This record gives sequence, C-alpha cells and structure tokens, in this order.
Amino acid sequence: MTAEIISIGDELLIGQVVNTNASWMAQEFNRAGIKIYQVSTVSDERLHILSSLYDASKRAELILITGGLGPTKDDITKSTLCEYFHTRLIFSQQVFDDINKLFRLRGLQISELNRKQAEIPEACTPIRNGNGTAPGMWFEKDGKIYISLPGVPYEMQAMVTENVIPELLKRFKLGAIVHKTVLTFGIPESVLAKKIEGWEDHLPPNIRLAYLPQAGSVRLRLSATGESKNDLENLIQVETDKLSKLIPDAIFGHDDDQLESLIGKLLQEKGLTLSTAESCTGGYIAHLITTVAGSSEYFKGSVIAYANEIKESVLGVSRQSLIDFGAVSEQVAIEMAIGAKKKLKTDYAIATTGIAGPGGGTTVKPVGTTWIAIATPGKTVTKHFMMGEHRGRNISKTASAALNMLRKLLIL
Amino acid sequence: MTAEIISIGDELLIGQVVNTNASWMAQEFNRAGIKIYQVSTVSDERLHILSSLYDASKRAELILITGGLGPTKDDITKSTLCEYFHTRLIFSQQVFDDINKLFRLRGLQISELNRKQAEIPEACTPIRNGNGTAPGMWFEKDGKIYISLPGVPYEMQAMVTENVIPELLKRFKLGAIVHKTVLTFGIPESVLAKKIEGWEDHLPPNIRLAYLPQAGSVRLRLSATGESKNDLENLIQVETDKLSKLIPDAIFGHDDDQLESLIGKLLQEKGLTLSTAESCTGGYIAHLITTVAGSSEYFKGSVIAYANEIKESVLGVSRQSLIDFGAVSEQVAIEMAIGAKKKLKTDYAIATTGIAGPGGGTTVKPVGTTWIAIATPGKTVTKHFMMGEHRGRNISKTASAALNMLRKLLIL
Repeated sequence: MTAEIISIGDELLIGQVVNTNASWMAQEFNRAGIKIYQVSTVSDERLHILSSLYDASKRAELILITGGLGPTKDDITKSTLCEYFHTRLIFSQQVFDDINKLFRLRGLQISELNRKQAEIPEACTPIRNGNGTAPGMWFEKDGKIYISLPGVPYEMQAMVTENVIPELLKRFKLGAIVHKTVLTFGIPESVLAKKIEGWEDHLPPNIRLAYLPQAGSVRLRLSATGESKNDLENLIQVETDKLSKLIPDAIFGHDDDQLESLIGKLLQEKGLTLSTAESCTGGYIAHLITTVAGSSEYFKGSVIAYANEIKESVLGVSRQSLIDFGAVSEQVAIEMAIGAKKKLKTDYAIATTGIAGPGGGTTVKPVGTTWIAIATPGKTVTKHFMMGEHRGRNISKTASAALNMLRKLLIL
Repeated sequence: MTAEIISIGDELLIGQVVNTNASWMAQEFNRAGIKIYQVSTVSDERLHILSSLYDASKRAELILITGGLGPTKDDITKSTLCEYFHTRLIFSQQVFDDINKLFRLRGLQISELNRKQAEIPEACTPIRNGNGTAPGMWFEKDGKIYISLPGVPYEMQAMVTENVIPELLKRFKLGAIVHKTVLTFGIPESVLAKKIEGWEDHLPPNIRLAYLPQAGSVRLRLSATGESKNDLENLIQVETDKLSKLIPDAIFGHDDDQLESLIGKLLQEKGLTLSTAESCTGGYIAHLITTVAGSSEYFKGSVIAYANEIKESVLGVSRQSLIDFGAVSEQVAIEMAIGAKKKLKTDYAIATTGIAGPGGGTTVKPVGTTWIAIATPGKTVTKHFMMGEHRGRNISKTASAALNMLRKLLIL
C-alpha cells in the first residue's frame, strides 16, 4: 500500500515549525508495511488544500493529512474537507462527551470554541482523541482512504498508534518492508564508500543502500522490499554480517541505537557508575545520559564547571595547572575527570574542556580546540580534537566523541 | 516571487531524517521576500524527481532542490537534472580546484569518487561550495529558475546566504513579507483565543494571524504582505502594541527570543551570576543556558545531583529532609537551590527535583510531580507542577517553567 502525507500549515512554509510530524508518521507507517511516496507541505488555503488532496489521490491509495484542526480562525481544514467530500458539518455527541471529559480532568471550563470542535463532517467516521479537543476523521472516496489528524504531535501520535494503524492492519494485507541501519563512527563518507564498494555492488536487487552522514558518524541504511518479513530480515542479516567483517571497528550500533543508551546498557550490565565534569559541553553530556529512562541506576551526577573557580573549588583542579596549561588543556581535563570520579564517587568520569566559540579563541588555541578525558578505575585516557567553528556543532560533536570514547573503554 | 522546495531523499520518506533543510530555507527565502508555496519531499527515483520538477514549475517561478548530490551510488539528482534539461555532464576545472583545495586543507587524499563530483551539467552555472565537495547548480528554462543544492545542512546554508539569495536580490524586485511572532506563556490556546477575539476580528486584511501552541507556550504569528517593508513593519507594530495591552503578563518575548537568551541578557545587564542544581532535568537547564554564546559571562556552573548522596555531599541538602520529605519535595528543592547558590557562589540558583518517569512514581507522588526552587539574593521562591507522564516532555517543560520563573523574578 502506498501513502502520501499532506502537512497543512503556513507555519511550516515560513519555516517557523519543523515538520517532525511527517518524519514520525513516515517511520510508523513504514514499519506497518506502508510506503510513503511523497510528503507535501501546503498552506492554510482552501484551494491549495483541495488541489493537494486531488493530486495525492492520483498517486496513492492512502492520504494522511495533519494540521489545521485547532479551535481558532486560522484552522480551515475541516470546512475544506467538507467541500472536497461534498458533505456538511453535524454535531457529534460522542466527540462532545470526549471534549467535556478532557476539560473536567484538567479542571477547566469548556468554551464555545471548543464546543464547535464537536462538529464533524457527516461523511466521516470520527477518530477519538484522548489527549486533545480535535477529533480525527476517516473518509473513503473512490477506493481511496483519507485520514485527517490534528497537528499537535502527541495527540496525532497516540491516534496513529492506537487507532489508525491497527485499523489499517485489520482491513488490508500489507506487503513487507524491512529497514536496517548500521551506525558507524569516525570514517568520512567517501572513504567508507570506497572501503565497502565491492560489498555494495553485490547487494541483492531488492535491497537499497543509503549513506546518511551526521556529525562524525555515517549511518548506512539497508532497505529491503518483498512478500515475507521473515525472509527479508534474514536476507538483511546476511548482508550486515558481511559488512561487519569489512569495517568491524567503525560500527557502534544499529537502527535507533544511541551512544547514550548503549553506554547505559554496558554500565548497567557491569554494575558500574558514571559521572561527568563538563566545561565546554555545559551539561549536554549529562542531559543525553539522563534522556535514557532508568539512567539513575548508573548515572550519579555531574559538576558543570563553566567558571575556572568551580574547576578548582568543586573538582579540585590545581590552580597551578590552570595557570601553567590554561583551562583548555590535557592536564586540566585529566584533573577534572579524576576530580569528578573522586568527588561524586563513581567508577568512571567523563571530562570535557574546550573553546566552543564564537568568542574565546586564540592563535594557539583556536575556537574548536577540545580536550576530552575519561577516568576509569585503572587509568585516565585523553584525546585532543579540533571540532570546528560552529558553537552548536562543537557541543554536540564533543558530546558524541566523549560517549564513543567511553563506549570503547567499556567494551575492551 | 513564488518558490517551491523539492527535498530529495528516501531517508526523509522513511522518517530517518527530519526535513530541517526545508524549514531553514523557508525562513531565509521568506525574509528575502520570496514566498514558499509548497514543499514536496520525494524519493531518490528518476521518474519521481522528474515529475516533481515538472509539477513545481507549473506553480512557481523558482524551484529549489536539495539532496542527492553526494559521491555515492544512491545519489542520482545530477544525472536526473541532465535528463530534465536535455544536457550532459562535463568536467569543470574550477569545481575540481575547489574540491582539491578542500581536501588539502583537511590533509586528505582526493579519491576517484570525489573527482567525479567535479563533473557538472553543461547547461548549468555552478554554485561554489566552500564547505563540501558537491557544487550547487543554477539552471534556467522557460522563464523559470531551478537551483540544486547539496543536502548537508551547513554546506547548503552557506551557499544560500552567500550566493543564491544575493544573486536573486540583484536580479529581481521582490515584494515585501513581514512576520512578527509574539511569544506567550501560561495561557491555553482556546482561552487565549477568547481573550483576543475582538482584536483578531479587527486586524487589517493584509495581516494573517496564526496560533502555534508548544509545551506551555503559545506563539502568535502575524504575517503582513504588501509593497513596502517599512509600512508593513509599522502596521504590525501598531497591532502588536494593541495586543500587548490585552495580555501584558503572558508575553515573554518576540520572534526568535528564547527564555535562555532573555534571562542571559537580563543577568548580564544587572551584572548578576547564575548556577543550577538539577535532579530531574539532568543538566538540560545548564545545557540550554550554555547554548547562548557568551553565557560564561553570567553562568558559573551546576551540580547535577541525580543521586541523593550528591544532593547531600555536594549541595549540602540535609539527610533529615531527604528522609522526612523525600527527594522530590519543596524542602529539598529549597535546600538544593540554597546549596548551589552558596557552593558555586552565585547571585541566583535554579533547583529542580521531580519524577521524570517512566519509573519511580507512587500514588502520592505520581510521575510528573515536580518542584522548582529559585534562590535569589533575598529569598527563595518555589513552585509545584504536575508535568504529565512523558519523560522527554517532562524534562523540557520543567526547564521552560524554571527559566520563566527566573525571568519573572529578574524583571520584578
């Protein structure tokens, strides 16, 4: 089954909001065996919405629409759908009851605007929204299915996973699509392509390969299409096994693996604890680590030592080292890591110090100069990086490099 | 001038990569007076690319294409453009020199794959890429302009701001578009809509209003179109002044203002310093604060006290309070804030403690229970929140609420 996504909203077309709904939906529908052929982002204008519905219906069997269902005057999707399906709005008691319940739970008074949200096109089957006031709508016309959902991410997401996908799976026998992504770190895209050229050229014809570079890492995505999910999974396994033998050191994980969850798993398995002492990363490493549910099992805390006096007073970095080598130096990184390990009583500690920019660079230590140190039970290892000139990228590249260093130490 | 964006890449259609390029471009081109009518995300397939180019050319004068220009086999944009424009690839010495220079700077050897990137369609004018190996391409056909750019964000961005937009401004007289966004915090969308209904109904016809809700905050965007940028700016100013009088307490900023940069500005103006003591937010507040360039002027550091023993040993929270009230309590939040203020020697300190979930909730303190305390030079203020059940949203909502509390204290 082929689907298209129509994302409605001027905020998307002036770039005020990033279309994360489309990528989330693409992922979920793909997993269910539904291929997304195109995403069209269109404005809150009647004619534009009408023509995009028509165009999409020529190319796909399923048309997924998000946005423009709010209670305010700029939201015109519902009336435009009425026009497209030659139907009219009617009051739905069930939808009204759902809205009422939601307001009671939040201790709020229902308004006239919200009452209007209980009006739905007569031709649709409403899709209940447990997290907001705008119901979804399921239409069918000329053998095509049209599903309109609100643009608020968590409302839309719950409706897709709880209602839309289960209903589609019940009614249709969908073909199989299997993706697997191999995550590599430390080899530039063109060098990697050269290394795996022979393997790439001999991939089976129903497997496609894509390279996705991202701050120090390249993700290799294999996509297989066919009849049986099982067969495809086996086929992909064979190919990724071959790949693993070609670049064993560069692969750090698969699919949605993230460095922070991988190190979490390793620490938990070994019963070890971790802390961080962060200067240039300003808490970003601690934040990544604590995005993982259950991280309190192995992560004890951090000292963000942005000011030098905190490096001294809390982490115990010696004043002499700060004077002799400067805050951005191997020696200070080492003392920060050892200080955090001791002060926070952990088995491992990550320390970062660098010039994130845009200010603070010198000829000897330009913006991007970074030292990472990791204190382990037995020793402290360090590494020097030149991360470049962009503050945001500096912070995220330093965090990834530090987590990857720790991961390599944990699997030794 | 009306433009469309065509984003090419299977990774976008399976949701592996979020289309941030489209939103960035939309913003930049809008600022230059170019309206983006539609964004179409299409696959790395010859026919799909060809038909999307044709469709876009029926609706817009300028077609902006990104992606599919890498050195690897999955990138087919260049050959497809040759087909669309009835032209062939030729070797460009200038592009080859640019690639060579880039490799020399990075101390790398040029590969055969990269050499092929110096081949460009004969019919195009190349757009130089200072940050990568794939040049951009500028085509003209039947009065329409087509611009193909690489998908790597910072490469594309530099080419747009340094080459593409200046060239378009030189050649065309573009109409004016002015946007202004008013940022509000703490009033739900439907309540806000009711409050400003009279004002909204009397907006001039060339101003459009949109509501953009987002975790506790609603952004109100006014978009004005016309001939003179100056006139539009004045017109919008008049309307936002009226709006400010209707909801004075709810407005915290405008346009790209962020709580973290606003509090940075306030602290810097007053010569005050800040630290954080974070439990449930795990360093996210420190991270937000340090994304702001120059934050080292007022931000001294943090203690991320994920484990209770660190609340005691580093922040000086009393064991008795932890036993009597539990880690997630008003009393512990107060002691954390006072502890950080004293230990890190700052004028203000933010403390957070809560149950981010998914584990750790109880009947008395369910997931989402959160206390925020802010220690100021004169007193410590606290606030209790129920943030809901979603770990990621809990962390970001707690961070926003804490920064907004601090902002209100700083403008008293």
